[in-house]
Amino acid sequence: MPSFAAGPAELPKEVVERIRRELPAFEDSGVSILSLTHRSTHFTNLLNRTLKDLREICLIPNNYEILLLSGGGAGQFDAIPLNLMRLNGDDVKFNADYLVTGLWSEQAAKHASKYGKVKILPGTTNGKYVRFPKRSEYEVSPDSAYLYYCSNETINGVEACDDIDVGMDKVVVADTSSNFGTRPFAISKHGLLFSCVQKNLGVAGLTIVIVRNDLLTYAHPFCPSVLNYHCQRDNNSVYNTPPTFNIYVLSLVLQWMRSEGGLEEMYKRSLVKSSSLYAVIDNSNGFYINPVSVESRSRMNIPFRLKNPDLERTFLSYAKADGLMDLGGHRSVGGLRASLYNGLTVADVQHLTAFMARFQEKYDV
Amino acid sequence: MPSFAAGPAELPKEVVERIRRELPAFEDSGVSILSLTHRSTHFTNLLNRTLKDLREICLIPNNYEILLLSGGGAGQFDAIPLNLMRLNGDDVKFNADYLVTGLWSEQAAKHASKYGKVKILPGTTNGKYVRFPKRSEYEVSPDSAYLYYCSNETINGVEACDDIDVGMDKVVVADTSSNFGTRPFAISKHGLLFSCVQKNLGVAGLTIVIVRNDLLTYAHPFCPSVLNYHCQRDNNSVYNTPPTFNIYVLSLVLQWMRSEGGLEEMYKRSLVKSSSLYAVIDNSNGFYINPVSVESRSRMNIPFRLKNPDLERTFLSYAKADGLMDLGGHRSVGGLRASLYNGLTVADVQHLTAFMARFQEKYDV
Repeated sequence: MPSFAAGPAELPKEVVERIRRELPAFEDSGVSILSLTHRSTHFTNLLNRTLKDLREICLIPNNYEILLLSGGGAGQFDAIPLNLMRLNGDDVKFNADYLVTGLWSEQAAKHASKYGKVKILPGTTNGKYVRFPKRSEYEVSPDSAYLYYCSNETINGVEACDDIDVGMDKVVVADTSSNFGTRPFAISKHGLLFSCVQKNLGVAGLTIVIVRNDLLTYAHPFCPSVLNYHCQRDNNSVYNTPPTFNIYVLSLVLQWMRSEGGLEEMYKRSLVKSSSLYAVIDNSNGFYINPVSVESRSRMNIPFRLKNPDLERTFLSYAKADGLMDLGGHRSVGGLRASLYNGLTVADVQHLTAFMARFQEKYDV
Repeated sequence: MPSFAAGPAELPKEVVERIRRELPAFEDSGVSILSLTHRSTHFTNLLNRTLKDLREICLIPNNYEILLLSGGGAGQFDAIPLNLMRLNGDDVKFNADYLVTGLWSEQAAKHASKYGKVKILPGTTNGKYVRFPKRSEYEVSPDSAYLYYCSNETINGVEACDDIDVGMDKVVVADTSSNFGTRPFAISKHGLLFSCVQKNLGVAGLTIVIVRNDLLTYAHPFCPSVLNYHCQRDNNSVYNTPPTFNIYVLSLVLQWMRSEGGLEEMYKRSLVKSSSLYAVIDNSNGFYINPVSVESRSRMNIPFRLKNPDLERTFLSYAKADGLMDLGGHRSVGGLRASLYNGLTVADVQHLTAFMARFQEKYDV
């Protein structure tokens, strides 16, 4: 039954089936991937192939390091200031700009303010997160160590439909956790992008960090080695024992993406899926409500309410009975939400839109 | 084919088979465990059951918190001083004692020295790590924040056969990564124990931290939230999205342990397995050599050399041909090593000892 959870989220069925098939022994190693030592040739080859596939499929330039880390997005909320805020050395900065467009960038800014001065570039409209601001609407500090933004806010359903561009000399850091692997990113406009794989690329427990190779030397001495970009680069992301199985699943999703047509195809499907769901909402005469400005609507996470919020519990239980799982909104905002990551098929979304139409027919009185 | 790797290591066959069987859908959730959201009732129940099983099976008193974290042992090498060295507040200490009995405690001490003054209590004999020192052989600082030791050194094959006891007022911290779940620990003599699950309890990507609940308030502000014990306790270890699959595997291994007879049975088996291997070494007339003092010999990791080291490559390739995998020593020391964690059966070890006897017969000329 399809899960519309905001992550961990559906893996492609083909990937789950392949894991099941290969579980007793990985390739010709004679050992299950669950037990394969990270120092074996088999694992080293798997890791290097995964990094190569990620670079090719997601168009990552050669002057960017790819790190596979633990600790999720929250780990990066601290790792970024610890590594990039230039808290020591000759070029002390101690401050950063945070473009806050939803609850996740709000969290990131809160973490960063433990380390230095954080300037919030507000991304609200009338106090609400419903639109990704245009470049002309916020002012970047000339002396900040970096500008941080979140390319897709899973709770608020706000997506930056394009890469933000603030000029070549500012280090731009992006939390792309929930839309990396679903459209091309102009990586070279960024200093760093990070992404938890449990949305579009794999199973929870692995974070991809893509960092320009001139930004590796600014870490504060108190930065733990497992979150220190320089240390992990020097050790090809195996400074500590890596989550071997989770890397394996990433490798399978990348292979699946390639066989399905790559990033462009994922992008196309995301547009088909999300636009069909927005169409149901927009054509519902206000029975379904999504508050986000059209140009900032997320292709990944679509929060919505019912005109009559008392019906939302009924909606959830009928949806579940129809095999549509995890359509509740984030516990901080309530309501409903459908997350449409790569692992969900167009047919899964048609299943949902058909259900929504029937539900409205029954309850829109 | 059995893997004798030092971790990631063999899972019990029954656990691998159960994962394979349950992969399409977790319990009655309708969703694969690979995709199950960490906010679902199914996952919350799984997490709480896992913590309860861990507490019961491993005899963890109620005044200890159990945290399930990311970042492995290396993550804890930084997390421990960041959380426990009392780097700020009214009761500043800034120093700690490290009992160094092998390469892992050596590493841990190196990490800690970034944060404060580290006193090394040496655990070598003639410059070599071959024996766990007696309590009378080292002097603990009266004013240190804690005393750190490693209960089993995987590279050197040195195990503390008993819990060390330095008196009730000193916080004792133990790296039990490679022997937790293989014998009872006197947890109440410790302030903190940590353990990576990829040795005896699961699949890489998860670290168990057991910490006495009066030790949660000393973290330095620069401690990343994902490694902050207080923060993770307050969030039941789901401050960040946890490695859901890895927690599931831990839960299955715990169930397996219980059904096999629990901690006492794991302890008995570890003695049977390791003593049969040491017997082959000791009865080989010096063909096989293990340098560790008998009372400190590890039940988990048995490093050994051949009298003629030139034969070690031959040993490894013949062993592999016989289905005995990953018997090479750690890259820092070379030689050979057999790791005998919970997932390896007595029969697997008999397979190895029989091979070793045949190998000696052929090459001991």
